[in-house]
Amino acid sequence: MAEEAKKLAAYAAVDNHVQNNQVVGVGSGSTIVYAVDRLAERVRQEKLNIVCVPTSFQARQLILQHGLTLSDLDRHPELDVAIDGADEVDAELTLIKGGGKDSKALGQQWKKGVPIEVIPMAYVPVSRAIAKRFGGEANLRMAVSKAGPVVTDNSNFILDWKFERAENWKEVNTAIKMIPGVVETGLFVGMAERAYFGMEDGTVQVRDPSVN
Amino acid sequence: MAEEAKKLAAYAAVDNHVQNNQVVGVGSGSTIVYAVDRLAERVRQEKLNIVCVPTSFQARQLILQHGLTLSDLDRHPELDVAIDGADEVDAELTLIKGGGKDSKALGQQWKKGVPIEVIPMAYVPVSRAIAKRFGGEANLRMAVSKAGPVVTDNSNFILDWKFERAENWKEVNTAIKMIPGVVETGLFVGMAERAYFGMEDGTVQVRDPSVN
Repeated sequence: MAEEAKKLAAYAAVDNHVQNNQVVGVGSGSTIVYAVDRLAERVRQEKLNIVCVPTSFQARQLILQHGLTLSDLDRHPELDVAIDGADEVDAELTLIKGGGKDSKALGQQWKKGVPIEVIPMAYVPVSRAIAKRFGGEANLRMAVSKAGPVVTDNSNFILDWKFERAENWKEVNTAIKMIPGVVETGLFVGMAERAYFGMEDGTVQVRDPSVN
Repeated sequence: MAEEAKKLAAYAAVDNHVQNNQVVGVGSGSTIVYAVDRLAERVRQEKLNIVCVPTSFQARQLILQHGLTLSDLDRHPELDVAIDGADEVDAELTLIKGGGKDSKALGQQWKKGVPIEVIPMAYVPVSRAIAKRFGGEANLRMAVSKAGPVVTDNSNFILDWKFERAENWKEVNTAIKMIPGVVETGLFVGMAERAYFGMEDGTVQVRDPSVN
């Protein structure tokens, strides 16, 4: 069911936002697989002229496997639309991304934690700084298919920050990013414009705060 | 003269701030070479028990070459004191670091630009975002001893942002760090507690806003 819901959401996003002659940003995660499936289908059927810019190695591979036109942020630094999956989404379209595992259900109220990409050298002081300032704990994510930590596409480590609650995501996100050694967080505050949710009954719900 | 001035400043910093049984952070750059020289001299002469934590490959090598005790931020995430060089220093001890070249004179009013460490994939959009938002231009720093860009110790690229003027360094620094793809900036706002300047007449001047 979760897979069907992801597919529904991904297809809706591609169908509603991708048009001919666009530069399309392609994110990462389990849902994006369906988005690229649909993108390839539409490009083929509608003979669209689409350039794809990946944000991850996974996205790059998907684009190549589907025979789509691959570009990068050097050649196409401005995207017309970017499609990505998310682990959690709140009412203001604050997202958490990068959990690395399938989210069983939406609305788990950030219980999976926030992934924080850090320079390897700094993972201990960053972890301590986050726990001290915001509570909870930030643990190094360990790999499953090799010994040692997960290493990101950019050669960094990931801390998974489990916390009790946070009030102002924008403030929290800025404060975390300002800690020396933090590269990116899995929090996307004020970046998403619209979210699609695949529902169990086979429908798709749209969340767009600007048209509420 | 510049070398003698760096040496004076570095020696003063080590002499005034390093005490027995401390964990000492060691930065990078041309001045830090003299700081480690002096640190090693004092450890030998005064039989100090000092643990050194490097923030760069250069610092790690200097610590090892001098036979000092090497540690890291995993084992010693809290430093008692950290010593580093800077390219530029203003009245509030906002620093610019990471210019990669010797600063001919202090007080050049940030003309060398601010180094910004970025994820390789993102260097074009980050460069454009900075120029659009803050003016000036942010150019990829090219290597001298190899073809292509400078690659940092953390496998990233560096943009050197040349600008006309900036008013509020704290705001500018936060805004730059929030751009996706920015890892660190060479701006150190509110981090330094005291600065030492080696002067041409052989004296050392101290700048410490808290005792002004």
